[in-house]
Amino acid sequence: MDIKIYLSKKHKAVEEALEQLMLQPVGPFENHIQSMRYSLFVGGKRIRPILCLAAGEAVAKSSNTEKNLLPVACALECIHTYSLIHDDLPAMDNDDLRRGKPTNHTLFGEAGAILAGDSLLTWAFDLLSSPNNGTLTPEQRLQIIQVIARAAGPQGMVGGQALDIASENTDFPFTTLQSIHKNKTGVLITSSVQAGAIGAGADSEQTDKLISYGNNIGLAFQIVDDLLNVTSTTEQLGKAAGSDVDRGKATYPAFFGIEGTRKKARDAVESAVDALTGFNQNADPLRAIAEYVYTRSH
Amino acid sequence: MDIKIYLSKKHKAVEEALEQLMLQPVGPFENHIQSMRYSLFVGGKRIRPILCLAAGEAVAKSSNTEKNLLPVACALECIHTYSLIHDDLPAMDNDDLRRGKPTNHTLFGEAGAILAGDSLLTWAFDLLSSPNNGTLTPEQRLQIIQVIARAAGPQGMVGGQALDIASENTDFPFTTLQSIHKNKTGVLITSSVQAGAIGAGADSEQTDKLISYGNNIGLAFQIVDDLLNVTSTTEQLGKAAGSDVDRGKATYPAFFGIEGTRKKARDAVESAVDALTGFNQNADPLRAIAEYVYTRSH
Repeated sequence: MDIKIYLSKKHKAVEEALEQLMLQPVGPFENHIQSMRYSLFVGGKRIRPILCLAAGEAVAKSSNTEKNLLPVACALECIHTYSLIHDDLPAMDNDDLRRGKPTNHTLFGEAGAILAGDSLLTWAFDLLSSPNNGTLTPEQRLQIIQVIARAAGPQGMVGGQALDIASENTDFPFTTLQSIHKNKTGVLITSSVQAGAIGAGADSEQTDKLISYGNNIGLAFQIVDDLLNVTSTTEQLGKAAGSDVDRGKATYPAFFGIEGTRKKARDAVESAVDALTGFNQNADPLRAIAEYVYTRSH
Repeated sequence: MDIKIYLSKKHKAVEEALEQLMLQPVGPFENHIQSMRYSLFVGGKRIRPILCLAAGEAVAKSSNTEKNLLPVACALECIHTYSLIHDDLPAMDNDDLRRGKPTNHTLFGEAGAILAGDSLLTWAFDLLSSPNNGTLTPEQRLQIIQVIARAAGPQGMVGGQALDIASENTDFPFTTLQSIHKNKTGVLITSSVQAGAIGAGADSEQTDKLISYGNNIGLAFQIVDDLLNVTSTTEQLGKAAGSDVDRGKATYPAFFGIEGTRKKARDAVESAVDALTGFNQNADPLRAIAEYVYTRSH
């Protein structure tokens, strides 16, 4: 299969769903909604939503599965976007550039950016609990909310970010780096895959395999991100290159060098693909996405 | 009934539930969880949780109702606490004092406070979607999540805060003040009452009445807060007195004077009590809470 065509097709489906579902900038909160929309539509690979759709497809390939999962996919992108807005704030990473465009707070001010993030996070749970989107059962919706809230919260994504901030310019062991990566990035990616599995009615064996795939693809993704931060230019990245080193953040290349890091990424991709043993060709998009993540490392 | 005894009893039940349910400060995220716990346990009247429990009691008075609603009540308090942490940030109201104690960011830094708020909000949805607490049906849980997410998000509490910040030092009409009050404070209070109604199995007529009660008690609450900001000392308030005027915020007293504002509070309290017509003595706590809110205005 041609993964670029697949990614482009799913990207389009996610964009259309976001456009259809997202609040319009009208009424008394027009400016606030505009600040949410700015970061949501400024660009992005939509990798979490696409993983959610592809995981659903691996379990049950039907137009109904995709229709049911699109609002979930959009909620995941809202949560990812909120996390980027808050990470970029002056009090955190203080980044002016994201996806090659000004960060939210440079346009809407710090207060505006904090609130844009707060609203994207809250609205994601509004979307996930809305009875108007698709035909998921209440049990499925609730399980999906539980999985995503757990992944995005204090024992997951936010906890990882807190640990990342606290560890800057300190000397810490590789296990701490693993914990930061896993929680800051990995768990939301795993939850994207898991949410797709739940929405498509996966059995427990399928779910376990997909969680293992998610854990490994999340790891590969983060390792490659560390690598690109070192090996790319700011223009290529759309955000400040070399910023990890500048901030005294530990990264995979700092522990293992460039080639050693590439090898770690390869290992994670192979583990991700191995986890899908037993799935038929409907899981080929997931397999191809894993390979695609690795090709980004060169 | 003695409302002070009732409030004290329910306050204790909420404290115990929070202590039991809230994450413990252990493991890799110890410091982060400590920052969440600090603001959650620094004090507070727990009025939203108590309104949730009292609304449930008005519909169905049983120990099972309270047991089912306590996790919901705790989630509401987490969302309220997160909103205070973010409102107090230097980029927003820049307050050093809240409930007579240092605000979150003065102790944990700006980044720490932003993340503490993010985690309290996210964890609230974790709690609401958890299958381990009580015997609410998936449909009830989902409805409660929907009502709370809608109230707390861009078209509710966060939208109201964005409007409040944007309106500082501008000349705006009374309708804008109403919109700020209703969304920043009122809707989460209404959703607390509504969540209690859903969890107790209220029918649609009961729910409508309780929503009307919630709208009016929320209004009364905010009017009295405006009044206290003008008429109290910092010591009495536990936060900076007169800060509304200092920040060029429009308030009820600015529009109606002290006595006119007190009259508006009285009207709202009476409308709240009137909305409960048809409920039996199990709604007496709700009626007494309405009167209690008014007594705070003197």
